Amino acid sequence: MILNVQSTRRNEFIDITRPVQEMISRCELVSQGYCLLFVTHTTAGITINEAAEPHVQEDILTMLNKLAPPGTGYRHQEGNSDAHIKSTLVGVSQYIPVVDNTLMLGTWQGIFFCEFDGPRNRKVHVQIGHTSCAG
Amino acid sequence: MILNVQSTRRNEFIDITRPVQEMISRCELVSQGYCLLFVTHTTAGITINEAAEPHVQEDILTMLNKLAPPGTGYRHQEGNSDAHIKSTLVGVSQYIPVVDNTLMLGTWQGIFFCEFDGPRNRKVHVQIGHTSCAG
Amino acid sequence: MILNVQSTRRNEFIDITRPVQEMISRCELVSQGYCLLFVTHTTAGITINEAAEPHVQEDILTMLNKLAPPGTGYRHQEGNSDAHIKSTLVGVSQYIPVVDNTLMLGTWQGIFFCEFDGPRNRKVHVQIGHTSCAG
Repeated sequence: MILNVQSTRRNEFIDITRPVQEMISRCELVSQGYCLLFVTHTTAGITINEAAEPHVQEDILTMLNKLAPPGTGYRHQEGNSDAHIKSTLVGVSQYIPVVDNTLMLGTWQGIFFCEFDGPRNRKVHVQIGHTSCAG
Repeated sequence: MILNVQSTRRNEFIDITRPVQEMISRCELVSQGYCLLFVTHTTAGITINEAAEPHVQEDILTMLNKLAPPGTGYRHQEGNSDAHIKSTLVGVSQYIPVVDNTLMLGTWQGIFFCEFDGPRNRKVHVQIGHTSCAG
Repeated sequence: MILNVQSTRRNEFIDITRPVQEMISRCELVSQGYCLLFVTHTTAGITINEAAEPHVQEDILTMLNKLAPPGTGYRHQEGNSDAHIKSTLVGVSQYIPVVDNTLMLGTWQGIFFCEFDGPRNRKVHVQIGHTSCAG
């Protein structure tokens, strides 16, 4: 399954928890399983962090901009090397456990698509499957 | 399956390799498969690194504290923004291959729960499943 | 399945997309599934980023060397603490969706083994499996 994401700024966290949950809800029954998410881009990422308080996302973006400042001080000449660096630090995939087609996120957790070189149209692969041992 | 972890300090790496292996050992046979680990918190993480020499864990924590110093210089007003930032950098999930219900870790690898805002009671989801091709 | 990687420098990104795809092509049919990759080392990592322009890899390595400079200013006395730190930041595993035994990478994405303490002989576990819902 493919989730389309439209970003509106150069650096932006977009909460995709609800659309991912809706895709999982429409699938055949998975009583014990996983959800895997994969971003097909090299200047974006995906993370799981606090969804209740938007300043957390701002603080993460501020730190990433300190580590990899936007601009031209890089070997790569397309002006978006900072976005590639942020993508490797944050990562382009996530895994979340699933019980009865429901994401087993913690109370404060949300799934965020991380745009580092927007605005753009982006794609996220969403896959679910069965695991073996409920313990 | 849920693994409970009790941290005792604000910043701390806790080796959970043994309890994870014990949970996998109690499951039905998985001859070729995977173990997936997921932390349900936004101020903690999970990593795989050297388990033999505790100074390695100290050096990683020191670097993370340099990137995201504890304190109040953040937009988020709960005093733990550094912990949220560290969580996104380290990540909240891990994958390890499993053969005959045994974690296929390298010689020096251990699995570490990373506490960034302790002490607290924490939870880690542990799932295993079958893969398809032994090659 | 195990992929052997031979690095030739201390810090180096090695594109392993083609050998991983070749291993997957030789497996039984996976129409909808995943590929999981796991590095069994504590001074290496694995990332997915732009494969077309080698300066991107250089810029990422330069940033990692700024975060964790090589040298002896660490508690760990083996002279490779920077490599352990980079391993935790980049991570030792990756997930990529698979359709009809083909990696569903984006146009610009390649899979890179990240050597941080070479040159060495290294190993990467490669696993594939089936998912449940094509959506």
